Amino acid sequence: MGIKEFMSNDRFANFIGAELLEAANGTATAKLTIKEQHLNGVDITQGGVLFTLADLAFAAAANSRGKVAVMLTSSASFIKATACGETIYAKASEISLHKRIATYHIDIKNEKGELIFTLEGTAYRKDIDLPL
Amino acid sequence: MGIKEFMSNDRFANFIGAELLEAANGTATAKLTIKEQHLNGVDITQGGVLFTLADLAFAAAANSRGKVAVMLTSSASFIKATACGETIYAKASEISLHKRIATYHIDIKNEKGELIFTLEGTAYRKDIDLPL
Amino acid sequence: MGIKEFMSNDRFANFIGAELLEAANGTATAKLTIKEQHLNGVDITQGGVLFTLADLAFAAAANSRGKVAVMLTSSASFIKATACGETIYAKASEISLHKRIATYHIDIKNEKGELIFTLEGTAYRKDIDLPL
Amino acid sequence: MGIKEFMSNDRFANFIGAELLEAANGTATAKLTIKEQHLNGVDITQGGVLFTLADLAFAAAANSRGKVAVMLTSSASFIKATACGETIYAKASEISLHKRIATYHIDIKNEKGELIFTLEGTAYRKDIDLPL
Repeated sequence: MGIKEFMSNDRFANFIGAELLEAANGTATAKLTIKEQHLNGVDITQGGVLFTLADLAFAAAANSRGKVAVMLTSSASFIKATACGETIYAKASEISLHKRIATYHIDIKNEKGELIFTLEGTAYRKDIDLPL
Repeated sequence: MGIKEFMSNDRFANFIGAELLEAANGTATAKLTIKEQHLNGVDITQGGVLFTLADLAFAAAANSRGKVAVMLTSSASFIKATACGETIYAKASEISLHKRIATYHIDIKNEKGELIFTLEGTAYRKDIDLPL
Repeated sequence: MGIKEFMSNDRFANFIGAELLEAANGTATAKLTIKEQHLNGVDITQGGVLFTLADLAFAAAANSRGKVAVMLTSSASFIKATACGETIYAKASEISLHKRIATYHIDIKNEKGELIFTLEGTAYRKDIDLPL
Repeated sequence: MGIKEFMSNDRFANFIGAELLEAANGTATAKLTIKEQHLNGVDITQGGVLFTLADLAFAAAANSRGKVAVMLTSSASFIKATACGETIYAKASEISLHKRIATYHIDIKNEKGELIFTLEGTAYRKDIDLPL
């Protein structure tokens, strides 16, 4: 089983329509097309949608290293609002990789390449091998 | 229209099954029962579910002050994993309230009162009155 | 040696004039009187002064548990500006304590009890006993 | 007066020995050589030193845009410890620039180019022109 197949079990990412495009060597890319069901009370994409897409990319990047990794902390910046019909892409890159702790930076951009959202997340790497 | 009716238009919160219990004077409480669709690849609640529930409480607390408020930044700590069948509660309290900027702290706890997740979020208050 | 004596070796906290008042069981309190040397370019307390005072309280609280603990991540909110002559107090409380990871919340307040700054920090607890 | 001259009034940055190398168009670079006075209780650089150096670069980058800008929130990751005698460099880049809100990312690296610390900070831009 590869990392993409392993991540296909992320039922919440599936439930909201987020799709993992690729993951390897501490990086990952995921996408989502914004629909009516993703909007908040003021008709822009709910923060939780952006967080979930970023978390999918984070988890794929962190787990691609072969150990079960979970998010300890994260910080998010909301840069630009998005609306129904837009497709957005989350790209995770690895900032650091230690035995127990690793850090990933995730940018979400729209199809024009404009920055929408950033997340920096810290992973705790358990002493459990992934069944990859 | 009250703040609860206004927030009932948060379609993503509705989509995932989060429910706003109360909101007034810069505070709010929301709840969610964790189902299969909320789990991630390692069978615990996906981070985006916790973030979305916290964001619902954040938005209700911030918008209860009568101006349209959006999240600028937030930081999250994942304290304890939760599993299918548990009911969790997000409680938002107001840390500060300025003309343009306000800060909210959100704790998510389970039914035993154990801490699951914390979020500190900063809101930008626009010069637009809510139709409350 | 107690935790206060151990922390008295924090040379940067000493250098800027921060003082640890007490520390025990995952909590700590520290104080600082703001002087000319603590100001930034626009005549308010530099962010690094607040961070350093909060870090002193964080480190004292985290290390009071008996294992060498270092900060992994932290998030800060600047709530209210302070000026020369004010005395401020940082109070750290423990949000969670696991084997390897612990979380602390620090509030800095002025003498009137007004909130100035908040920090939430995550500690990594090494497998090294403190010489307490 | 240019932005470097304006920033030379950051008395806390001066007090700890941080030096602004350049600042323009939303970017800035600052440096510091770590001395005994910058160490914490476990003989590594105190977190407040790294934060202060990053804050100097942040403030120079944000204020270089010509409006008085102050930090609202920030999140930090501690990647690698540093010790006495090392020289470290903080480099700030602009992630976003809106009328009231701007976001900056700061990396601190050592002389080998290894990443030591990251900060993402959000600025509030006041309606006050800098005397540049």
